[in-house]
Amino acid sequence: MHREPLDAVRAYRARHAWRVLAQFRDLLALPNVTTDLPALRRNADAVARLLTARGARMEVVEHPGAAPLVTGRLGSGGERTLGVYAHYDGQPVGTDGWRSPPFTPTLWDFAGRVVPFPGAGDAVDDEWRLYARAAADDKAPLIALVTALDGLRESGLAPAVDLVFCVDGEEESGSPHLGGYLDALGDRLRADAWLVFDGPVHHCGAPQVVLGARGYCAFELTVYGPTRELHSGHYGNWVANPALTLARLLATFKDARGDVAVKGFYDDTTPLTDADRAVLSALPPVEDALLERVGVAEAESPGSRLADRLMLPSFNVRGLRAGDVGAAARNVVPATATASVDIRLAAGDRPDRMLARVRDHLAAQGCHVLDRDPTPDERRTHPRPVRLIPTAGYPAVRTPAGTPLVEHLVRAASDAAGTPALTVPTLGGSLPLHALSTLDSPLVILPIANADNNQHAADENLRLANLWYGVDLFTLLLTRRW
Amino acid sequence: MHREPLDAVRAYRARHAWRVLAQFRDLLALPNVTTDLPALRRNADAVARLLTARGARMEVVEHPGAAPLVTGRLGSGGERTLGVYAHYDGQPVGTDGWRSPPFTPTLWDFAGRVVPFPGAGDAVDDEWRLYARAAADDKAPLIALVTALDGLRESGLAPAVDLVFCVDGEEESGSPHLGGYLDALGDRLRADAWLVFDGPVHHCGAPQVVLGARGYCAFELTVYGPTRELHSGHYGNWVANPALTLARLLATFKDARGDVAVKGFYDDTTPLTDADRAVLSALPPVEDALLERVGVAEAESPGSRLADRLMLPSFNVRGLRAGDVGAAARNVVPATATASVDIRLAAGDRPDRMLARVRDHLAAQGCHVLDRDPTPDERRTHPRPVRLIPTAGYPAVRTPAGTPLVEHLVRAASDAAGTPALTVPTLGGSLPLHALSTLDSPLVILPIANADNNQHAADENLRLANLWYGVDLFTLLLTRRW
Repeated sequence: MHREPLDAVRAYRARHAWRVLAQFRDLLALPNVTTDLPALRRNADAVARLLTARGARMEVVEHPGAAPLVTGRLGSGGERTLGVYAHYDGQPVGTDGWRSPPFTPTLWDFAGRVVPFPGAGDAVDDEWRLYARAAADDKAPLIALVTALDGLRESGLAPAVDLVFCVDGEEESGSPHLGGYLDALGDRLRADAWLVFDGPVHHCGAPQVVLGARGYCAFELTVYGPTRELHSGHYGNWVANPALTLARLLATFKDARGDVAVKGFYDDTTPLTDADRAVLSALPPVEDALLERVGVAEAESPGSRLADRLMLPSFNVRGLRAGDVGAAARNVVPATATASVDIRLAAGDRPDRMLARVRDHLAAQGCHVLDRDPTPDERRTHPRPVRLIPTAGYPAVRTPAGTPLVEHLVRAASDAAGTPALTVPTLGGSLPLHALSTLDSPLVILPIANADNNQHAADENLRLANLWYGVDLFTLLLTRRW
Repeated sequence: MHREPLDAVRAYRARHAWRVLAQFRDLLALPNVTTDLPALRRNADAVARLLTARGARMEVVEHPGAAPLVTGRLGSGGERTLGVYAHYDGQPVGTDGWRSPPFTPTLWDFAGRVVPFPGAGDAVDDEWRLYARAAADDKAPLIALVTALDGLRESGLAPAVDLVFCVDGEEESGSPHLGGYLDALGDRLRADAWLVFDGPVHHCGAPQVVLGARGYCAFELTVYGPTRELHSGHYGNWVANPALTLARLLATFKDARGDVAVKGFYDDTTPLTDADRAVLSALPPVEDALLERVGVAEAESPGSRLADRLMLPSFNVRGLRAGDVGAAARNVVPATATASVDIRLAAGDRPDRMLARVRDHLAAQGCHVLDRDPTPDERRTHPRPVRLIPTAGYPAVRTPAGTPLVEHLVRAASDAAGTPALTVPTLGGSLPLHALSTLDSPLVILPIANADNNQHAADENLRLANLWYGVDLFTLLLTRRW
């Protein structure tokens, strides 16, 4: 029997879509919030079992204080070895906004109706979406890979390329222990290239081959008012209000054009080359459709292109807390006000230097910046004591365009999708690729999720057509050489 | 038997302090959050029972959609009738910061130790404090009154003054139905003066006779970002962040000196007269001690006097909400950001005009101000749609100084406390006195709670010495004519 692998696997997954979805559902039903170690262990074991069942030699490694890493190899005769990185942990799930519970995987059709999970022989619509935390970010690639392997085996086709696995359990926590795991595993992770399966395809729906990702750091800023909440009538207008002080501080962080006003914020960013600009220019415009999709009238910097903005570091207020709002609001001057901020780093930026600049900026606004609550004496002495708790994060990475590997991957993605793949210089999101990039192999990101997958938010979902794209992409990566 | 009423009642309450505290504990153990109607009904009944047991003819009136009002009369032969206003409802209790649960009344000593409730014959320390929601605001005056009545009866002394009662169940909600209750009760609330027992004594510890209170209005402001939370890496730095937009808007509401920058904010405020200035000048300085007590280095407007600031309308951010902070923080651009703001009104200010100025201010910052969520079309059309939900509130009131009634009250307060009472032109807090002031009797506020009672906040408490002051004050008001 001689068949093209892509045709063979496509025929397989058309017949067995119901089985693939049942398997996906089982994996998504395991809660995987990145801070919940017992839950993460159950996920790691499930991932290892999925790959062991396809003939891989898997191992669940667990360092003290860390979530387990799932690692292993498939095949031993190939000339080429591809490293496969994905992660099994997920973001916290918040409390509202989910149309179905985050760990009760549910199929929805385009009209907003729940679809029962199909049985053998039932039709499956590629526009259905599976809703659950981690459906897109980042359990989908694991299901796509095992489906490709099942399809090849069922069709009597053998992979031509070996795989080595690194399935992370701490990606959503910034992979603090990935470097330690990689050091300990050493040569066992040798690969000709590391492919990172995470993030969404391009907004226009085209597949993309992404040559980097932004880095990340974060901080939580707390402004101190009176030592305890005070009655807003008896004291308001005389004691300064920390919520207003926080608002005024945050307002100094960006100028009217949406650029970050922190001194030196853009100084370390690697300038764009002509090649970068050419790649950026080749990207299709997505802005009008995106404004429509997210329901806003204009970009923060009106008329700006998304891809251009992603080449820069960003400043994002991800949370605010002071007193109460709504029915629970009390007429008080709050005792504290807190903002949580994440900063995305561009190539060249360093987390420690960015956080130092934030500290300097706050000091320039008259803040006495501490890494803990102020003492009573510091409250008496300094008009504006603040606490800054940093999250160190990791730098951005970028891989050069124009290599045979990149060309091979662009071809595979284009053939899998049936439409030309875009080459994108960086993902807007962050991946802890800094640790992986120390393995001295080229590193490229191959996203498969739909762009509107709501990752990190409520109603995270995966469009089935994107799952099938992932199956096809793995099929080609497993059977083609470069 | 002929004894001075004050001596007689003091001797009585020294012997029966344990019984007074047990009664107070029972009343405070009834949850009374101002939005909880079934709980409020239980409080109204308990208040009516307390006064009925002292010979008053009480009635619990309940209008549709309103918390009950407790009203009635005590005595029928006096030449003079004093109206007694207090309220039995309390502020919401929040979720943390209480050293003992808000509805488990607990005695604490000065060293921070729990004190068992005393039995008959046990010593009682006047510096102990009773911790519970409403211990100060505003169940203390009710216990002080019934204790004074018990002491007089036990001593064979009869009140020389009749009382008429108005015990409100919606004060912490802005008493939206008080006007309707007063209209319906009409002549039954006839009194020579209305005395409002609420709020704290002066910061220096001296008793005070307060000739007015600030009014109140409030609003909740919601800023809209994308229709749902977006991944901060993939979209941050391109889509505007509503939390940052909210911070920038709030920053425009006050200038660097702490003055409200809303156009016309101070235009309606009645200017201070020379008499007002004289009363203000006579107040002792409290600022240094207060800064020390609340743990801040300087006032919002450094060097300003608290009493001066209270003669002006205020702007207070009582709550902020966007996304999440702490362990629950997710790397998203939040979909909305909300601030809750209360405005205290000075004499002459009107809530509707203040709220209109806030709306105009927001419009001048480029906001499209709605009273509901924006439609998809409004989101597409307006770069900055916001929702403003107003709370109409009520105006301030002030009674002129220099009348015989005011002089009588100042003497009574001074004698009860054993130290000269201060005359204060206005309370910083708000009371729904606008409705009461339509009864055409002079209206004066007689606070009894300690200044550091934490009313409206966690750890609300009443110092026992202040409860005894209240008992003494009621004793003199009941037995002296003017």
